[in-house]
Amino acid sequence: MSRPPLNVALFGSKFMGKAHSNAWLQAGHFFDLPLQPVLHTIAARDAAYLQQFAERWGWAKWTTEWQTAISDSAIDLVDIGTPNHVHRQQALAAMEAGMAVACEKPLAGTLQDAREMTDTARRTGVPTFVWFNYRRAPALALAHRLVKEGRIGRIYHVRAAYLQSWGGPDTPLGWRFQNSQAGSGSLGDLMAHIIDMARFVTGDEVAEVNGAIEERFIKQRPRADDPTKKGRSSVDDAVLFLARLKSGAIASFESTRLATGVKNSNRIEVHGEQGAVRFNFERMNELEFFDGSELPHLQGWRTIQAMHEEHPYAVNWWPDGHWLGYEHTFVNQAADIVVALNGGRPVVPIPDFEDAFTTQRVMEAAVLSARHRTPVKLSQVS
Amino acid sequence: MSRPPLNVALFGSKFMGKAHSNAWLQAGHFFDLPLQPVLHTIAARDAAYLQQFAERWGWAKWTTEWQTAISDSAIDLVDIGTPNHVHRQQALAAMEAGMAVACEKPLAGTLQDAREMTDTARRTGVPTFVWFNYRRAPALALAHRLVKEGRIGRIYHVRAAYLQSWGGPDTPLGWRFQNSQAGSGSLGDLMAHIIDMARFVTGDEVAEVNGAIEERFIKQRPRADDPTKKGRSSVDDAVLFLARLKSGAIASFESTRLATGVKNSNRIEVHGEQGAVRFNFERMNELEFFDGSELPHLQGWRTIQAMHEEHPYAVNWWPDGHWLGYEHTFVNQAADIVVALNGGRPVVPIPDFEDAFTTQRVMEAAVLSARHRTPVKLSQVS
Amino acid sequence: MSRPPLNVALFGSKFMGKAHSNAWLQAGHFFDLPLQPVLHTIAARDAAYLQQFAERWGWAKWTTEWQTAISDSAIDLVDIGTPNHVHRQQALAAMEAGMAVACEKPLAGTLQDAREMTDTARRTGVPTFVWFNYRRAPALALAHRLVKEGRIGRIYHVRAAYLQSWGGPDTPLGWRFQNSQAGSGSLGDLMAHIIDMARFVTGDEVAEVNGAIEERFIKQRPRADDPTKKGRSSVDDAVLFLARLKSGAIASFESTRLATGVKNSNRIEVHGEQGAVRFNFERMNELEFFDGSELPHLQGWRTIQAMHEEHPYAVNWWPDGHWLGYEHTFVNQAADIVVALNGGRPVVPIPDFEDAFTTQRVMEAAVLSARHRTPVKLSQVS
Amino acid sequence: MSRPPLNVALFGSKFMGKAHSNAWLQAGHFFDLPLQPVLHTIAARDAAYLQQFAERWGWAKWTTEWQTAISDSAIDLVDIGTPNHVHRQQALAAMEAGMAVACEKPLAGTLQDAREMTDTARRTGVPTFVWFNYRRAPALALAHRLVKEGRIGRIYHVRAAYLQSWGGPDTPLGWRFQNSQAGSGSLGDLMAHIIDMARFVTGDEVAEVNGAIEERFIKQRPRADDPTKKGRSSVDDAVLFLARLKSGAIASFESTRLATGVKNSNRIEVHGEQGAVRFNFERMNELEFFDGSELPHLQGWRTIQAMHEEHPYAVNWWPDGHWLGYEHTFVNQAADIVVALNGGRPVVPIPDFEDAFTTQRVMEAAVLSARHRTPVKLSQVS
Repeated sequence: MSRPPLNVALFGSKFMGKAHSNAWLQAGHFFDLPLQPVLHTIAARDAAYLQQFAERWGWAKWTTEWQTAISDSAIDLVDIGTPNHVHRQQALAAMEAGMAVACEKPLAGTLQDAREMTDTARRTGVPTFVWFNYRRAPALALAHRLVKEGRIGRIYHVRAAYLQSWGGPDTPLGWRFQNSQAGSGSLGDLMAHIIDMARFVTGDEVAEVNGAIEERFIKQRPRADDPTKKGRSSVDDAVLFLARLKSGAIASFESTRLATGVKNSNRIEVHGEQGAVRFNFERMNELEFFDGSELPHLQGWRTIQAMHEEHPYAVNWWPDGHWLGYEHTFVNQAADIVVALNGGRPVVPIPDFEDAFTTQRVMEAAVLSARHRTPVKLSQVS
Repeated sequence: MSRPPLNVALFGSKFMGKAHSNAWLQAGHFFDLPLQPVLHTIAARDAAYLQQFAERWGWAKWTTEWQTAISDSAIDLVDIGTPNHVHRQQALAAMEAGMAVACEKPLAGTLQDAREMTDTARRTGVPTFVWFNYRRAPALALAHRLVKEGRIGRIYHVRAAYLQSWGGPDTPLGWRFQNSQAGSGSLGDLMAHIIDMARFVTGDEVAEVNGAIEERFIKQRPRADDPTKKGRSSVDDAVLFLARLKSGAIASFESTRLATGVKNSNRIEVHGEQGAVRFNFERMNELEFFDGSELPHLQGWRTIQAMHEEHPYAVNWWPDGHWLGYEHTFVNQAADIVVALNGGRPVVPIPDFEDAFTTQRVMEAAVLSARHRTPVKLSQVS
Repeated sequence: MSRPPLNVALFGSKFMGKAHSNAWLQAGHFFDLPLQPVLHTIAARDAAYLQQFAERWGWAKWTTEWQTAISDSAIDLVDIGTPNHVHRQQALAAMEAGMAVACEKPLAGTLQDAREMTDTARRTGVPTFVWFNYRRAPALALAHRLVKEGRIGRIYHVRAAYLQSWGGPDTPLGWRFQNSQAGSGSLGDLMAHIIDMARFVTGDEVAEVNGAIEERFIKQRPRADDPTKKGRSSVDDAVLFLARLKSGAIASFESTRLATGVKNSNRIEVHGEQGAVRFNFERMNELEFFDGSELPHLQGWRTIQAMHEEHPYAVNWWPDGHWLGYEHTFVNQAADIVVALNGGRPVVPIPDFEDAFTTQRVMEAAVLSARHRTPVKLSQVS
Repeated sequence: MSRPPLNVALFGSKFMGKAHSNAWLQAGHFFDLPLQPVLHTIAARDAAYLQQFAERWGWAKWTTEWQTAISDSAIDLVDIGTPNHVHRQQALAAMEAGMAVACEKPLAGTLQDAREMTDTARRTGVPTFVWFNYRRAPALALAHRLVKEGRIGRIYHVRAAYLQSWGGPDTPLGWRFQNSQAGSGSLGDLMAHIIDMARFVTGDEVAEVNGAIEERFIKQRPRADDPTKKGRSSVDDAVLFLARLKSGAIASFESTRLATGVKNSNRIEVHGEQGAVRFNFERMNELEFFDGSELPHLQGWRTIQAMHEEHPYAVNWWPDGHWLGYEHTFVNQAADIVVALNGGRPVVPIPDFEDAFTTQRVMEAAVLSARHRTPVKLSQVS
């Protein structure tokens, strides 16, 4: 192939390992990329499983020592899909080695980790990216575009929620329920996404977090190693907060793993003076748009099925009306990362560490607001 | 009250008796009418029940002999809400007495009855009206208006269905299952409505009925008088047909009482060269509209909640966003009848006998097509 | 008529005057009531308008002095549909006269007024009712019933919002924007409803209000008397708060008149350990229910169209599948008030002043939380 | 890799070439397959384009002469993704060479071609498969399963439509509008799918086609080579017919490319005595199910999001609630073909040539019914 290679090292081989492997593999099939992503090295802890995984997805090398990849000068990009508490160490090593880094969200398990990563990114100047993948659902990217085009005007209200329902009392105590590994529960897992979504769609920033509630409904869970015993669940099951944005808009945010019946709904509603947009990942190919400039008898929410060739990313996939799924958000991001690394412009902005650090600060403000039962200005969190 | 009275005699006191009583009562409360509808006389067969009914709804007189009302010169309008096989006799008597007539749909139990009624209407010149009430759901009236405004252009497709699910094998053998009283099953009960709806929304006419199927799935039903015994159900449970319209559009029609799970959905979808409209009575306050002239990235079906003051009838009811229900279609029609009788113009056209006769001819064409297993041109049915 | 009369005096003749007139008129048509509501006297300020209104709706007497009705010993029930700041004076007078009182929501314009009304109700022992009409949308009453039947189990989350979009910068400065008359903006107008809804559906109570935001986006509005001039809008456009309920559930509440594109959506979502319910007034005849006890491959949100005869109130109206509208919530409440006054049991509980005072305390807690930027326990507000 | 290879030769490199390439590539990533699909050879007409395509997707060899693949004994499976009129020749050659064949739908451009292919399949005994890909949308596969489990009982009604809206008067005259290449318009393109869907979901067969309409709304289209000139469009734009199924159920079918506003909706509604199912590809991850055995006050259509691990195919993809798209129906079929070739059992049945020939006979019956304006029994078409 005539395109120069982009050698990727991926850390992590579970859910995100699979999503990212697929993304690097598929990006070149559907996008005309300036560089050819190469599945060069994958690192994870379980050798037996990893060997099979690498073979299945076509990773040229595999290792249980991620440092091996850092010391391999062939690697262009380190892609981090590990639990949150490991992000810092891996990202710092990669950046110090001069490698570009694409890190799963949230940026880190703690604000301190996130700050150190951001500082290092700034100092080393390596390109960084964070996998806030939902930005690249075409319908949500369209929302961003419509707001940017001025179609809804001055924003009054933002209403964001990420609802899931897999974390009931019988759910085993995996790493996602342990503060030492995850840093938080729904906050990092889900809330991080919708903070990013709100910032992405509105182009606005949180100025103050208000009245946050951080709730651990379920204190004890069956241990993953021995379900007859219980262990302590040390992360939040749900977080809610209100916020004021810089523009004066007001917002509400909610993340929970206990929204019984709702499998995976990250949704956002934004009302402006001239119009409004609504997105719900449950129907991820659709954007609802209200245009207040229509004739009164024609006004209504319209459902835009965002697969027309004029919609973001759609032209790279199938004919209009042939829907995309969850995984395509990652493929779209992989393609955009390749474009950005080659000096091009992604279809919609990709958050770098600096940008994701802002999201992490909002998360921290929520924690502080919940713990101190007081409003917290974002300027107080740095 | 300064408005001149409009003395109404209503025949029938069951489902339609209740709907019409309510309509005459409420019309003056919500509309500024030129005449004051007066609930003058109600006629039905069961004296004991009727007395209570009359008292409850405020009918000034009641009688078990409908002819009494015909011979009462005070009556201005005879409103017929009886089973289909009685329509002819009652309507003829009223028309011959020079009274205006509002008749429940279908116009009659047989084509012959319908023809005689239409001929008499023409000859006597009395005003006639048929209760195709769904025309007066604001959202459907809006569909009519949008098509008339040219917003969807040349029509290609019409897809109409009236689905209900109350007629399973355990449903007792009431009059609606007896051909001698009802004239037909779903055909007169449901199909009549959607034929009218299609004509109303498109402004077009059926030219040919094709491939009709008339199906009696359930041959025997528990007798209403003695459920331990069964009697013969002599009407269709479902009717389907395809049609060509005069304009060249093609259409499908389906009526059934066996659409398990669907309580009461009369729906119509109309696609034109420039746009399309969709209505479903299950969400009767909403009209879906697709405008093909929008920018491609903004195109989508919009859901118009038809309660804005610029929507048909809405200004007479509640503020925008305060929904109407089934009964309001009758109140709207009662109000329009009063307006028409005073020489005014109803909000949207009301079918008279002549108009309803066309719908009846389409029904007959469906029966003929089903029985002779052949296409039937409407011009062959007269 | 053999039923004893219930003589009603209604105060107010605008939006609520119309809704209540209709309710008293229709209740006896659709329900078998033990007492016959009589539209005895209506009081409002504009004589010319009122005379016509009274004639149209059949009020036997009308007066511009509401006190006239209080001194008329024939009156059994005083129905208050006036602006919030007048509730106290009218209700106190009626209660002192030994009359039953049905008062529009919110109970009063201020907490102090509400407290005095509640104290007087307790002391006089007259029956009191507050028009939280949405409880009587059959689908919402069904939600109440399903929760009570234990079908969703321990509650984790409540998410309530009342969104409207009529209060933009061009909306004239009517009484609803003047604190002296309305007491608040969206808080009393909209939020009161969803606080009541949440209490009604869950059977739970707010223990603490957290992080409330009270926002006046639009400071100046065109004056109603002279639109070329502007006047000061002195009420909130939107209020948001989070809350903890006594059971441990957490909740969010939002009311706004600036949710562009959303005409009239009061919605509530409640997630319990075993199931969940969702209601949105935009589709008021539908309740969404998730039953977590189903087989996994059959689980899903089901849309219950709440017009079956086993659903609350439905048996009094039309056959299954023939929808109700906004006004029917009032008719249902009027019927329930008559039943309650006769010693019977309403279909679902009707809030009395005591109950509505609890809702008012939650509203007050929100105001305090917003102004002092701190959590407020309900026990602190009395 | 320890799995034995399955060498695939693919004919065609456009829309279906891309969908099938992706399917063969991805099947092994997400499924534990007994054989490893190998992208061995691709054949198509445009050498320059094909070389790039082959490189992009990893086809080991490419050729402009499809016969080359037939004579390559390494090939195990010939996959045909070419226009309909070529299917016969390619399939026959592959079958005579003893190769398994997977052919795009419809089976052929003409009934005669389809019959010859079916006869040859029977004679040679090679495994054959037809790409009716929608069967493998998890939600539709679930519909098949629920019906098979007896959850809806005796079937009364089937309502199937495949609506698209890309074929207006300005659409250029590509091969899909030329009878010589496509054999038909919407009939083969769209109707074939829903006939297969109806057969798949119900397990029933069409006994008689009734009243078919075959419509060519647009007679002339801009020529693909020179849009300033027009050429004759020689295929149907829309086809509709009614049908009786062997079980006694009645059905309607509609396919069109002129359903303005509807991008890609293949939908089917099936009502049985005990329940019902509805599917619409526009929301392809959802199945609507009505269970008539529920308590009356709990009955409603439930929306099953078919991504739970107990749903067909879902366990091979992402966690519950992480949606699939159009392309996954092909990947699922590729995986099932591999399983079947190894003697295993696909998740749901795959149509072979014999099965697809039945679908083709229904298509032919529709054509005959339309042309002769008469009902046509399926037994008359062979």
